[in-house]
Amino acid sequence: MAIVAPASELIVAPDTEVDTPMLVVSEEILRRNIDEMAAFAAGVGVSLRPHIKTHKTAQIARLQMAAGAVGITCAKVGEAEVMVDQAGIADVLLAYPTIGEPKVRRLVALMERATVKVAVDSLEAADMLSRSMTRHDRTLDVVLEVNTGQNRSGVTVGAEAEAMALQIARLPNLRLTGIMTHEGHANSAPPDEMETIAIAAGEAMVATAEAIRSHGIALPTVSVGSTPAARITPTVRGITEMRPGTYVFNDNSAFRYGTIGVDRCAARFVATIVSRPAPDRCVLDTGSKSLAMDPSRAHPGHGYIVGHPDVRIVKLSEEHAVCSLPDETDGFEISDRVEIIPNHICPTVNLMNELFIVRDGAIVDTWQVAARGMVR
Amino acid sequence: MAIVAPASELIVAPDTEVDTPMLVVSEEILRRNIDEMAAFAAGVGVSLRPHIKTHKTAQIARLQMAAGAVGITCAKVGEAEVMVDQAGIADVLLAYPTIGEPKVRRLVALMERATVKVAVDSLEAADMLSRSMTRHDRTLDVVLEVNTGQNRSGVTVGAEAEAMALQIARLPNLRLTGIMTHEGHANSAPPDEMETIAIAAGEAMVATAEAIRSHGIALPTVSVGSTPAARITPTVRGITEMRPGTYVFNDNSAFRYGTIGVDRCAARFVATIVSRPAPDRCVLDTGSKSLAMDPSRAHPGHGYIVGHPDVRIVKLSEEHAVCSLPDETDGFEISDRVEIIPNHICPTVNLMNELFIVRDGAIVDTWQVAARGMVR
Repeated sequence: MAIVAPASELIVAPDTEVDTPMLVVSEEILRRNIDEMAAFAAGVGVSLRPHIKTHKTAQIARLQMAAGAVGITCAKVGEAEVMVDQAGIADVLLAYPTIGEPKVRRLVALMERATVKVAVDSLEAADMLSRSMTRHDRTLDVVLEVNTGQNRSGVTVGAEAEAMALQIARLPNLRLTGIMTHEGHANSAPPDEMETIAIAAGEAMVATAEAIRSHGIALPTVSVGSTPAARITPTVRGITEMRPGTYVFNDNSAFRYGTIGVDRCAARFVATIVSRPAPDRCVLDTGSKSLAMDPSRAHPGHGYIVGHPDVRIVKLSEEHAVCSLPDETDGFEISDRVEIIPNHICPTVNLMNELFIVRDGAIVDTWQVAARGMVR
Repeated sequence: MAIVAPASELIVAPDTEVDTPMLVVSEEILRRNIDEMAAFAAGVGVSLRPHIKTHKTAQIARLQMAAGAVGITCAKVGEAEVMVDQAGIADVLLAYPTIGEPKVRRLVALMERATVKVAVDSLEAADMLSRSMTRHDRTLDVVLEVNTGQNRSGVTVGAEAEAMALQIARLPNLRLTGIMTHEGHANSAPPDEMETIAIAAGEAMVATAEAIRSHGIALPTVSVGSTPAARITPTVRGITEMRPGTYVFNDNSAFRYGTIGVDRCAARFVATIVSRPAPDRCVLDTGSKSLAMDPSRAHPGHGYIVGHPDVRIVKLSEEHAVCSLPDETDGFEISDRVEIIPNHICPTVNLMNELFIVRDGAIVDTWQVAARGMVR
């Protein structure tokens, strides 16, 4: 087999014995990404609470903590359980509405083993948590999720958020400790509008926090999210915490923001050419069940083939990735390998049982994606 | 909690204690789907070799075998290993190019425990298999994969396929036993053209098989694929085998073909409304990491909410499904549940660790998706 790209851009040697398809991670790039974000957070004076959704891997969470993170962010109780029990994380924000008694029971158990904060974005959810915590004789820290324009979950920033914060603060056995937003609408805006949108989101959060504090609520935390705006929103004076996730690996979407090149993409999907049915077409041994189906916001198609900007992954079915090959493309013969930067690395990791860790071009370790499949 | 749909269309009772998100399977609909396809295959006199990609579950493979399947189809060696070892399947077609010595070694080991046939679509792949089998002192049955218009993998039907068949038949330690196609281009054609395309694909396969046989090659198998055309292509005289997969569950795409209603959709994704931030918007506790991102070819959006054709799942992020609610929609309050027919059930199953089996509205069993994650 051969790898069909300039060797300098690749992270794994073509003669590695591990079979494809597989997701490989450059330990060097991973550590650099982790260290740089930690240094940035320290530089602007905000706490770093990375979202583990991107890697779901105990070893990487521990690297993030070692670099100075104050704790982690999870979406699911099951992810938090894995991170507390397998990675030894002591401080978790569940940045997701936790609804229903089965999850609350697990939350109460988890509170015995770690500091846990939970997001709420409705009085109904806060009231359920308040009643459950009263029944279990516990007090839970909650963070109000605020919508700064993404229009997903979250109560509208400003007066609505202020009013709900006051109501939540009055509920027994809850302690309102902060507000949080995911300024995802900045990520999907045209690049030249992104900074303006992210700054506006940050400023609206700080103003809302001040309004809530004016009622005598301490509210130490004003938290913002997301890798694409990670160098922008946290610079707003008054933001206290940032929760980026994707930065550990980066992906094809990250190219769009201009500052990130292939050399910052730590995770590569290694696939083999298994069919070459026509001069202008080959098939890779991946598809929607291993690479994931997320559309690209940068390089067209279903991922960027390292070293081959002109080759397009034009169609994914479950186990086939069909590539169009321009005239006179060298290589791409059966049993050749390619490294792919996925469009969106988070769902790709979510399809893998393990990550293969690469040092100096060789696979040196295997890390289980221990929180994969923890959908509840 | 309540389930917001006419009870008659739902398969699981709203008061089930199992937490969401989860994928539930109606045992009754599953068995009916399995039995009907088996009866159809018997009626038209073709062998049924279902593709297990849809369910990846030992219990369902066993139900298919009990209903008369001659064996199963898999894409990955790892899936075949699970099906042989955990479901006791004795006859497997690997309908995927098997490239590289690691997979061949596992194939040789598997041949000790089951009858295994392998698809090839290139002389390079056939030659590698031939040399490996010679080295291992084994003879492998191979099936030539033929492209009847889908333009994914496969050698072009007709003279090209005939020529490659003759070359493969001469290779030592391989036995060419059939040709196969996946007429996926029929599935994606406009509904009124589907039958014509599927019939043409079947007829071209039969003509190609006859041409190969005219050289003295027995070629017992002429195999066609795929659920959408399952009632069409196998009716062509001379087709000997069919390999549908999705029919066990059906999905939102199946609606498109007119003959399938919600009552034939055995697998439902049960999600909870976790946020209701605006009168016209709610958020379900699912997203691309549990429901999958495949586009719909039928009902618009990211899945069909049973009983609510006017509610649209307009946006999926990793753990959030944002729904738009028309004016005066009843229900959809926090902690209510919905049943969703996924756009494409196969990648949804691929994201689940287990299926929850429902009988008479109650969850009665949990089946592991044992071949999930077997990407190699």
